[in-house]
Amino acid sequence: MIRGKREKSMKSSLLVLVAGLVAAGASWSAESLQDVMKRRNLSQQDVLAAAKTYVPTGKRDEFIAFSSGGQSGQVIIYGIPSMRILKYLAVFTPEPWQGYGYDEESKAVLAGGRIDGKDITWGDTHHPAISETNGQYDGQFLFINDKANPRLAVIDLRDFETKQIVANPIFKSEHGGAFVSPNTDYVIEAAQYATPLENKKFHPLEEFNERYRGGVTYWKFDRKAGRIDPKQSFSIELPPYSQDLSDFGKGPSDGWSFTNSFCAERYVGGIEKGRPPYEAGCSAKDTDYLHVINWKKAAELFAQGKTRKINGHDVIMMDTAIKEGILFLVPEPKSPHGVDVTPDGKFMVVSGKLDTHVSVYSFDKIMAAIKAGKFESKDPYGIPVIGMQDALHVQVPLGLGPLHTQYDSKACVAYTSLYVDSQVAKWNFCEGKVLDKISVHYNIGHLMTMEGDSVNPAGKYLVALNKLAIDRFNPVGPLHPQNHQLIDISNDKMQLLYDMPLPLGEPHYVVAVAADKLKPGVRYKVGTNSRTDQPSPGAVRAGEEKTVREGNKVTVYGTLIRSHITPETIEAEVGDEITIHLTNLERAEDETHGFTVSTYNVHASAEPGKTVTVKFKADKEGVYPYYCTEFCSALHLEMQGYLLVKPKGWKPTKTALAAATYTEDDYKKQLKKIADTQAVIDSVVGYITSVNYKDFPDVVAMVEDATDQLGKMPDAKAKHEAAAAKQDWEQANLWAEQVWQYQVKAADLGLRAKTYLEQNGAKKAN
Amino acid sequence: MIRGKREKSMKSSLLVLVAGLVAAGASWSAESLQDVMKRRNLSQQDVLAAAKTYVPTGKRDEFIAFSSGGQSGQVIIYGIPSMRILKYLAVFTPEPWQGYGYDEESKAVLAGGRIDGKDITWGDTHHPAISETNGQYDGQFLFINDKANPRLAVIDLRDFETKQIVANPIFKSEHGGAFVSPNTDYVIEAAQYATPLENKKFHPLEEFNERYRGGVTYWKFDRKAGRIDPKQSFSIELPPYSQDLSDFGKGPSDGWSFTNSFCAERYVGGIEKGRPPYEAGCSAKDTDYLHVINWKKAAELFAQGKTRKINGHDVIMMDTAIKEGILFLVPEPKSPHGVDVTPDGKFMVVSGKLDTHVSVYSFDKIMAAIKAGKFESKDPYGIPVIGMQDALHVQVPLGLGPLHTQYDSKACVAYTSLYVDSQVAKWNFCEGKVLDKISVHYNIGHLMTMEGDSVNPAGKYLVALNKLAIDRFNPVGPLHPQNHQLIDISNDKMQLLYDMPLPLGEPHYVVAVAADKLKPGVRYKVGTNSRTDQPSPGAVRAGEEKTVREGNKVTVYGTLIRSHITPETIEAEVGDEITIHLTNLERAEDETHGFTVSTYNVHASAEPGKTVTVKFKADKEGVYPYYCTEFCSALHLEMQGYLLVKPKGWKPTKTALAAATYTEDDYKKQLKKIADTQAVIDSVVGYITSVNYKDFPDVVAMVEDATDQLGKMPDAKAKHEAAAAKQDWEQANLWAEQVWQYQVKAADLGLRAKTYLEQNGAKKAN
Repeated sequence: MIRGKREKSMKSSLLVLVAGLVAAGASWSAESLQDVMKRRNLSQQDVLAAAKTYVPTGKRDEFIAFSSGGQSGQVIIYGIPSMRILKYLAVFTPEPWQGYGYDEESKAVLAGGRIDGKDITWGDTHHPAISETNGQYDGQFLFINDKANPRLAVIDLRDFETKQIVANPIFKSEHGGAFVSPNTDYVIEAAQYATPLENKKFHPLEEFNERYRGGVTYWKFDRKAGRIDPKQSFSIELPPYSQDLSDFGKGPSDGWSFTNSFCAERYVGGIEKGRPPYEAGCSAKDTDYLHVINWKKAAELFAQGKTRKINGHDVIMMDTAIKEGILFLVPEPKSPHGVDVTPDGKFMVVSGKLDTHVSVYSFDKIMAAIKAGKFESKDPYGIPVIGMQDALHVQVPLGLGPLHTQYDSKACVAYTSLYVDSQVAKWNFCEGKVLDKISVHYNIGHLMTMEGDSVNPAGKYLVALNKLAIDRFNPVGPLHPQNHQLIDISNDKMQLLYDMPLPLGEPHYVVAVAADKLKPGVRYKVGTNSRTDQPSPGAVRAGEEKTVREGNKVTVYGTLIRSHITPETIEAEVGDEITIHLTNLERAEDETHGFTVSTYNVHASAEPGKTVTVKFKADKEGVYPYYCTEFCSALHLEMQGYLLVKPKGWKPTKTALAAATYTEDDYKKQLKKIADTQAVIDSVVGYITSVNYKDFPDVVAMVEDATDQLGKMPDAKAKHEAAAAKQDWEQANLWAEQVWQYQVKAADLGLRAKTYLEQNGAKKAN
Repeated sequence: MIRGKREKSMKSSLLVLVAGLVAAGASWSAESLQDVMKRRNLSQQDVLAAAKTYVPTGKRDEFIAFSSGGQSGQVIIYGIPSMRILKYLAVFTPEPWQGYGYDEESKAVLAGGRIDGKDITWGDTHHPAISETNGQYDGQFLFINDKANPRLAVIDLRDFETKQIVANPIFKSEHGGAFVSPNTDYVIEAAQYATPLENKKFHPLEEFNERYRGGVTYWKFDRKAGRIDPKQSFSIELPPYSQDLSDFGKGPSDGWSFTNSFCAERYVGGIEKGRPPYEAGCSAKDTDYLHVINWKKAAELFAQGKTRKINGHDVIMMDTAIKEGILFLVPEPKSPHGVDVTPDGKFMVVSGKLDTHVSVYSFDKIMAAIKAGKFESKDPYGIPVIGMQDALHVQVPLGLGPLHTQYDSKACVAYTSLYVDSQVAKWNFCEGKVLDKISVHYNIGHLMTMEGDSVNPAGKYLVALNKLAIDRFNPVGPLHPQNHQLIDISNDKMQLLYDMPLPLGEPHYVVAVAADKLKPGVRYKVGTNSRTDQPSPGAVRAGEEKTVREGNKVTVYGTLIRSHITPETIEAEVGDEITIHLTNLERAEDETHGFTVSTYNVHASAEPGKTVTVKFKADKEGVYPYYCTEFCSALHLEMQGYLLVKPKGWKPTKTALAAATYTEDDYKKQLKKIADTQAVIDSVVGYITSVNYKDFPDVVAMVEDATDQLGKMPDAKAKHEAAAAKQDWEQANLWAEQVWQYQVKAADLGLRAKTYLEQNGAKKAN
């Protein structure tokens, strides 16, 4: 009905619109929309795409995407449809802006990812997964894997920080993680290149078939703790078939998981010795194997102790898995990249990259074959193989290089990337027919729809993760950005909306969640170690700051607040071990402070309420400035101090510093400045209290911080008045100046709060 | 005239436009522009802003911005007006995607930035500068400083790589770099927090006035070598005034440089001992000092040897500078942040952050005072001080927290950021009047106009570098992105166009250059060490790959090409030192390969033509897969190999690997597949050679790579035919498969070239 009404009035309202654009142009711009289109050579389609993606200042994106960063070892977070990157979140690679790997709290997280007792300072992140409840994204946690150094990380979406890294105890590489079970009981991590499972055990390549193994690890996730529990986690030994991507079943297929593979030939290359290379031997046969695993029963076997300990980790051996009937194989077109369970849980979609078809397997048919004991053969390790035709629902010809599939909100509609054709195919997996194709730029790897691997995809948008950009962007040297292209899928025909360059890293996979499912905090409870979510033993409150020396250990319990660090001097002797704990006392959103000490290679980022710790050995005599590395206030450069590293046994010879001179006149000027500023503050306070500011939590936090600043004034005021009474004009001036500093910061907060209230529709208070 | 014509026909053409949008909407989208505006709640201004910033697929941005990354230690490169980030360029912080700090070539660059013999694995980048020729940006080099660990980096814009890092020999922090002289003879780096200049020399804070010093370093840039020459560089000792930002004179003021300061009080804090903090003592007086330095004469003094060696570095001491008449001071409103020379070189603009005015100093007046010997006083170190009123051209009241100024293409027009007011002021520095103001979100630090600190600013756009975003974006936890806002300055009134979140780092300053001044390469000459620009001693050509053992040193000279690494096996004994050189043989644009070895914490990124080196000790027995970390072709997962680390003295017992079985039928199927694929290739080749493909260098490179792939076919063909003749079906099948692999890659390249030609208007060849 609304639509009918709109259409009837379209012509007249378009005229109004055009008139408006002309009129608006006259008032604030010399150009009309048509002028801009002409000048910038934009087509009508371009303007429509611009209007579909542009997010005006202060407005929000509809979906938030979490992308792997590939070799950058990070997670990339961006908004859809604006395609603006909101955060590079440090996971496996140290990153100083976030203090990650530069403060002690985050170093402890990275230490969890040590392998063979050594730090690994990067990762090859591949597949992020958002935690699910009943198969729906719940926006609480994010998981991501490291292919190069097989590890898995847990990110808490309450504060967007990496909380835990666990190293896989039996693999040397893994590609098939992270994917979560429908209630996030388990996170899957499948091996890639087969190796002996025993750590530091050498077996020659000639023993590949007998000694090299793949596998799948099921990491147990403790949602309440927000951490993986390694002791409750287990693996299943698999043949050396180069396991690849995985997915969990859902709905009717809940309880099962699926993992494909790409070198079931078990080929070993050696191009340098005249043997055909891996690429030839690993794709010589027409099919590889889809692994079908009953993980719920596997979890029971683990609970029953039917495992072998390898490197201290519980592994269900192949023989057990076969005997207990939890492991089956189905041939799949060779070298697939991804097995993607449909939202209804009835089908598993697999694309062999060198085949032109996408293959849709029926879970019902697979179960029927298993139930009937109908197997076409056993593999060399004795695993029952279900016949391909007994498992297939349909095969659909899509094009060259089909790769990864995601789903639409419309029933039966799927999208598959075509790497070699550089296209996305839209098709119907129930009826097996192609619906539409669109070209992308270029060589698309994965693709992603909104919540597109959950039980209820949201439709609307698709992102093509193109591996090559080539000519799409202004050139920035031989190393190009990748190109994530946003495609509108709300209509029958797909429409390309936007090209987004990826400035850092090589994303492999992305997941996107409705923005309103994310509700991260903006501050911590004062004194929190954000990596453990516990109170930090190094935290102190304002006024309780102290420096403690025990032997050659100097420990500072300090605080940060606009615009000073307490303490402003740290004294040490050469060789001392220095530990500095700093608590950010701010409550206002976005009032982060940073901290570093010149040339000692430490850095911390302290968001409101957080306590951070840096630690180093003062092994160099001299004077080392420290400062707040965030532009946190007008006087941020003055937020400084000195670490004094004295030679052993040093004794002072001079005890006073010649200071600048101040007069009574200077003091009088200070008092006038304070009075003038107070008038401004009073007016701002008058406005704020005249409206319903208490309805705005962000403003309440700013008012609290401003009140804090003003609360410090009486003490400084008493000091300058006492000094003035004694005609100590230096102290009188400095403490008067400090009163004004408190005023300036309170005024800054007050003005910010006033602007916020004005822009967010504050109303007169009763 | 054109304009008049346009206006006359505006009404009718707008109707056509609207009709077109409706018609276009019908054909490829269910929505018209008006529908989208209504659904997305966009105003007419929003649509106009969207149209002014949207860059359609394949089109380019007009300007390229280089932003500091703050504590991330990187440079951020983005396009204007699309505000899309194109690259995070690694400078001071290791970054694995670029292999930076993970391969040997880049480690050597980072080693140049060692301080006290130790690696510093991050930086606090502040102020980027583009190289200039006659005061105009020339787009050849970029310089950036590290405030925390005083260092300067040189980036070559021919390949967008960091080539050199030099550590300041006498400072412990620096904020006032990088700024270049009009012909990039020198790059300036000014100290920030005063310390004793002698390294590792302790002096107590009580000796602050006597022993602590600031200074300015003039780094000599050798443009031909593309490197700084430390031996030709020198510094000037300055008082302990916390020197801040700097700028070089230009035009009439060429030969002079200007550096401001913010704690001329020489105050030493100590809030933990009850002393007023730095923020009070450092802003107690109304003025600080602008340092005015004759750098051309200073360079002569350096050439004449009138320096003192401190830490092996040449320093012109204050006494010499005073005696030789190259150093003067002018009072400036307290705590300024930036001195910005006008494009005509006649004025220097300074804003005291706690003053409401911007102060415009006249270079002529300063020179007149110096010439006349008219000084109001000397500072405590004997430096002549020019009276503020004798140097000022005008002071203009702008608002609260004025900070940084840049210039328009229109004469006399300047823009200044207002931190506390969260505004940008547009004003006239000749006449001293305010022209316009616009609100930004929030707390703007620096701002930047296009080429806005060169002798001829380009106007058009301004970017506000807001330190706080607060509520502008979807929340991503307590640590917020910053907000760079794009403002249209082409009209009298400024117009806010776009909010760009900064996903990583805390930028301080940005410079933007016309995109057409940048002409980076897309590939290296085969075998290049990109960090030295020299041929790599580790490079080999295809077919020359080898592994050399000398004692316990194993050196691999290998190659990378779609989709195999040569060699595919590296054999070592526990304890061996492994060096792996890899040359990327590709020529096609964007065909980067990566390389890593499981858990050995190395990674390299090899762009086309580049030779990279990784090095590690094989200290763990076992089997370690290596692989290409880039999704470089459909079979990228098969681009793999194994590092075998054997126990010492290990002897093989098994010499053959049981392989998969192949039949004659398999071989016949292979031959059929090869024939089918060849037909596709022939058709693509037919198209390419039918058009003027040689006019497209990118296509020529793709054709070369494809020809390379096809060139390998005869050898593999001979092998499969010989094997078939001997009825060795395994070898026959594998080598036939390899022929097909070469075909697939040639076809992939060919299809890409064909698409490129079609989209770029290739014409029938004669």
